[in-house]
Amino acid sequence: MSAAKTMAKKAEELTQVVEWNDGRVQRVDDFLAGEEPLEIRVGRRAVSVTMRTPGHDAELAAGFLFSEGIVESADQIASIEDISGMQNAVRVKLSNGATFDGARLRRNFAANSSCGVCGKVSIDSVRARVHRIPNGKFRMSAESLCALPERARSAQAVFGRTGGLHAAALFGADRGLLVLREDIGRHNAVDKVIGWAVLQNRVPISDCTLLASGRGGFEIVQKAIVAGIPIVACVSAPSGLAVQLARRMGQTLVGFLRGKRFVIYSGEERILGEP
Amino acid sequence: MSAAKTMAKKAEELTQVVEWNDGRVQRVDDFLAGEEPLEIRVGRRAVSVTMRTPGHDAELAAGFLFSEGIVESADQIASIEDISGMQNAVRVKLSNGATFDGARLRRNFAANSSCGVCGKVSIDSVRARVHRIPNGKFRMSAESLCALPERARSAQAVFGRTGGLHAAALFGADRGLLVLREDIGRHNAVDKVIGWAVLQNRVPISDCTLLASGRGGFEIVQKAIVAGIPIVACVSAPSGLAVQLARRMGQTLVGFLRGKRFVIYSGEERILGEP
Repeated sequence: MSAAKTMAKKAEELTQVVEWNDGRVQRVDDFLAGEEPLEIRVGRRAVSVTMRTPGHDAELAAGFLFSEGIVESADQIASIEDISGMQNAVRVKLSNGATFDGARLRRNFAANSSCGVCGKVSIDSVRARVHRIPNGKFRMSAESLCALPERARSAQAVFGRTGGLHAAALFGADRGLLVLREDIGRHNAVDKVIGWAVLQNRVPISDCTLLASGRGGFEIVQKAIVAGIPIVACVSAPSGLAVQLARRMGQTLVGFLRGKRFVIYSGEERILGEP
Repeated sequence: MSAAKTMAKKAEELTQVVEWNDGRVQRVDDFLAGEEPLEIRVGRRAVSVTMRTPGHDAELAAGFLFSEGIVESADQIASIEDISGMQNAVRVKLSNGATFDGARLRRNFAANSSCGVCGKVSIDSVRARVHRIPNGKFRMSAESLCALPERARSAQAVFGRTGGLHAAALFGADRGLLVLREDIGRHNAVDKVIGWAVLQNRVPISDCTLLASGRGGFEIVQKAIVAGIPIVACVSAPSGLAVQLARRMGQTLVGFLRGKRFVIYSGEERILGEP
């Protein structure tokens, strides 16, 4: 897989910068996080262009298509390949029988209604698409939860250098790390992790906690709910709409997971309840 | 402006949460950052739906349309109004003579070319749109730069409560704060600040530093370049493509602005050169 190798290289780049430190000026070498657009095509049709950190593009495409409701399982994907002669473009071929509903894609992107868009409509559109409630029997102890950020950090080879990447990771109830992906965009990191699970035939992801760096916005929680993930833990604050969505869908949502402290916004029973 | 009042209220909401602190469990009240979709229409045509924190929607719309090249000045905007009977939707009416080029919007969103999308094409498309180089005479001293994050923090009324919002702010060379806007999304915060300048007839913004919380990705730098801003300072790391763009366009780009230290990625003369 020489293509994969090239991709991995572009995940970071070396450059010379000027550091100013309390009056001292120094020229130093610095690693920068890679960022390039990726075009995702389904057959011949371009469905998305997103700025992402190169690497794990097939997972990003699979996760994106899954989150948007275009595919529901790996069975529906015949292949995901770089388009020859093009940089930063992948083509997803659907399996015989799987159809691509362009109108549905548009609906999912923009939750329109005659009364305008609003948080309620956004939440209702997720509820209409997702019929399962996240696994109510999954448990993760508070102590295990607190251990996750450090485990993720030690797995973040790139982060240590550039300081510029978001990370998303899946952990089992025993704190075991299943997969960690990084990206300049939080949503992409989550799509890569979910895409990994899709391609491994592991959806719904009913026995994992998703750890996401940064804030917990509506779209992060939405992606996790579509994938069936029972617990989402963020390092920073969730939004009001993300909390409403998690509560309505019975998902556990944790924020400000730092050191030996965190805040539970929804579904406390999975953390504080009986095992 | 009763509408503005309602908006301001939705910028945050109060809820009860569970705090876990090293084994102690406590039910506490917590403020959450507001997040709702906003549909932006030009005339009858919906051009964007974005998740944003309610408030300053007219500025967000103006900044978005300016960044995308749909309007170039306040003269081209006849009005920006909430659509009556709809929540979270604004209609922009263009002035007589101003035309809306839907094809251009599509081109700007997705820098397509026959060889695929890539960083070079993305940079070239910005260069093709922006004919002016950011003001080469603007200066801000290193000491002034270091003072900006604290000045922004003290102006962030909402941030103190929710901890969940990104901020963008414009400062003059004398460290004076011109405008600060917050949003759950970094790009929206920047669009609101630029939209403020558009509506005030202050573009190009040739005599200001833009401070942006979080990472400095390609799109943040792109928006600042389109607006003519000479210095962009971010609290976290910029991406490789953002640095390439800033260097090509002669913009000063600073990252990791924290305490008495920062890193200059491009255009050091505006900070270290002669005043």
